[in-house]
Amino acid sequence: MTGLENVRIVLVEPITGGNIGAVCRAMMNCGMTDLAIVAPRSNTDWDSAVNRARTCTVLDERTEYQTLAEAVSDCTLVVGTSARTGFYRNHAQTPREMAPKLLESARAGYKTALVFGREDMGLRNEELALCDVFVNIPSHEMYASLNLSHAVMICCYEVFCASGVYEHPQETWDEATSDLKERMYALWSEMMLATGFSGEEKLEHMMMGLRRIFSRGKLTEADVRILMGLARQAIWVSQGSCRDKQ
Amino acid sequence: MTGLENVRIVLVEPITGGNIGAVCRAMMNCGMTDLAIVAPRSNTDWDSAVNRARTCTVLDERTEYQTLAEAVSDCTLVVGTSARTGFYRNHAQTPREMAPKLLESARAGYKTALVFGREDMGLRNEELALCDVFVNIPSHEMYASLNLSHAVMICCYEVFCASGVYEHPQETWDEATSDLKERMYALWSEMMLATGFSGEEKLEHMMMGLRRIFSRGKLTEADVRILMGLARQAIWVSQGSCRDKQ
Repeated sequence: MTGLENVRIVLVEPITGGNIGAVCRAMMNCGMTDLAIVAPRSNTDWDSAVNRARTCTVLDERTEYQTLAEAVSDCTLVVGTSARTGFYRNHAQTPREMAPKLLESARAGYKTALVFGREDMGLRNEELALCDVFVNIPSHEMYASLNLSHAVMICCYEVFCASGVYEHPQETWDEATSDLKERMYALWSEMMLATGFSGEEKLEHMMMGLRRIFSRGKLTEADVRILMGLARQAIWVSQGSCRDKQ
Repeated sequence: MTGLENVRIVLVEPITGGNIGAVCRAMMNCGMTDLAIVAPRSNTDWDSAVNRARTCTVLDERTEYQTLAEAVSDCTLVVGTSARTGFYRNHAQTPREMAPKLLESARAGYKTALVFGREDMGLRNEELALCDVFVNIPSHEMYASLNLSHAVMICCYEVFCASGVYEHPQETWDEATSDLKERMYALWSEMMLATGFSGEEKLEHMMMGLRRIFSRGKLTEADVRILMGLARQAIWVSQGSCRDKQ
C-alpha cells in the first residue's frame, strides 16, 4: 500500500471545467484517483474538463457533495490550502512539510483530504474551520496567486515524491576506479605528445588542467572507455601522419 | 541578486495559447520573467494566452527565436526536460537535484535556461543535444505525461524553493515552557475535580491521558493560555453551580 489511494482531492465549487480536467490529469500524474467536487456549478463546462483530463478515469469516477463537511466526513486528516493572508497564516505549513504527515495517515489506511477552494475566493472561513492543517504554497510576491490546477499539481507532486513510488532512473554504469582513470590519463599524455599538442616540458602542466576538467563530475567506466578510445585513435592517426611526412 | 532573474524559460513550438498563458502565470508565481518562444506557430491563440496569463508582463516581454540554438546561445547552463524514455534517460536528474546547480550559475550572473518541448512530441534529438543536463519530472506510470504548464510549474517551483526567496511564515508565539505547562496541568486537575468529571482516585490516570494528548504537538504560550483560561472558567462555573445545589 503506497497510501496514494487514500488521498482524496477535494475541489470546492470550482468555476472552470478546464481546471477540473487539468486537476484530473495532475492527479493521475501522481497516482491519485479519488476526486470529490463540493457544490458543483450547474454551468460547468464538462467538455473542457474532458478535453483537459486526457483520460477520463478520474473524472468519471468523481464523487459530488453538497457541502465540504460531507466530502471529508470519513477523513481523519483534512488539509486546507489557503492564500498567504488571514488569521491562520502563521500556522500554515509548506506542501513539503505536510506531505509526509499526510502519507503517514494514508499509509495506515485512513482516508485523508487535500482541499482546494474556488478560483476567485478560495475557501470560506467556515470551510477552513473544518481543516486540521493549513498549507501555503510558496510563491513570489510578484504574483502570489496560483492557478487552481497548478496548486493541485504542486501539492500532489510533493505527496507523490514523498511516497517513494517513483524510482529515479539510476546510472547503469559504475563509477570509474582510480586505476582505470590513471590508465586513461596515461593514454592522454601519450596522445598529447604523439599529436604534437604538447611537448615534454609542458606536459605536466597540461595534464593538471585535464585532471581538473575531468574531476568536476564523476566519471563512469563508460565515460572513461570513450575517452580512452578517442586517445588511442588520435595516437594511431598521428603515428600514421608522422609516417606519411617521412 | 536571487538568481531568478537569470533563469530563462524556453518553450519550443508550443501548440496551445492557453498553455503559453498558464506558463507566464507560473513563472510570475516563481519570480521569473524571461520567457523565450522558439518557432512560434502562426495559428497561436493569443487571446487564450492573455486570458490565462492574468497579467501580461511576462507575455508581452517575451522574446521569439527561430531555433533553440539561438534562444540559448548566451546561456551557460541549458537544462532540457524530457519524457521518461530515450537514450538519455539514465542520465536525467530530478527537478529537485537540478535546482541548486541551476541557481549556482544564475546567482553568479550567468544566463541559464530551462527548455520545454512541444505538447505532443517534446524535444527532438537535435534539440536535446543542445542541453547540458536533462531533467525528468517524477510521475506515476498510471499517466506519466504532464501538461506543459504543469511541467513548467514544477520546475520553476523547485528552483524558486531552492532560491530561498520565499520566507515561510513562522509561529509568532514562543513555545510554552515546562513551568507554564505545569501550571496549566495543575489548573486542569483542579477543573476535573471541581466539575466532578473525575474523583481523586482516578485523577492521576486522567492526567496521564491529558498529558499524552497535549504533548503530541508543540504547545505555544498562546495555546497554554487558552487552555488555562478555559479551566479557570469551568472551575468558576462549577463552584457557582455547587453553591446553587446547597
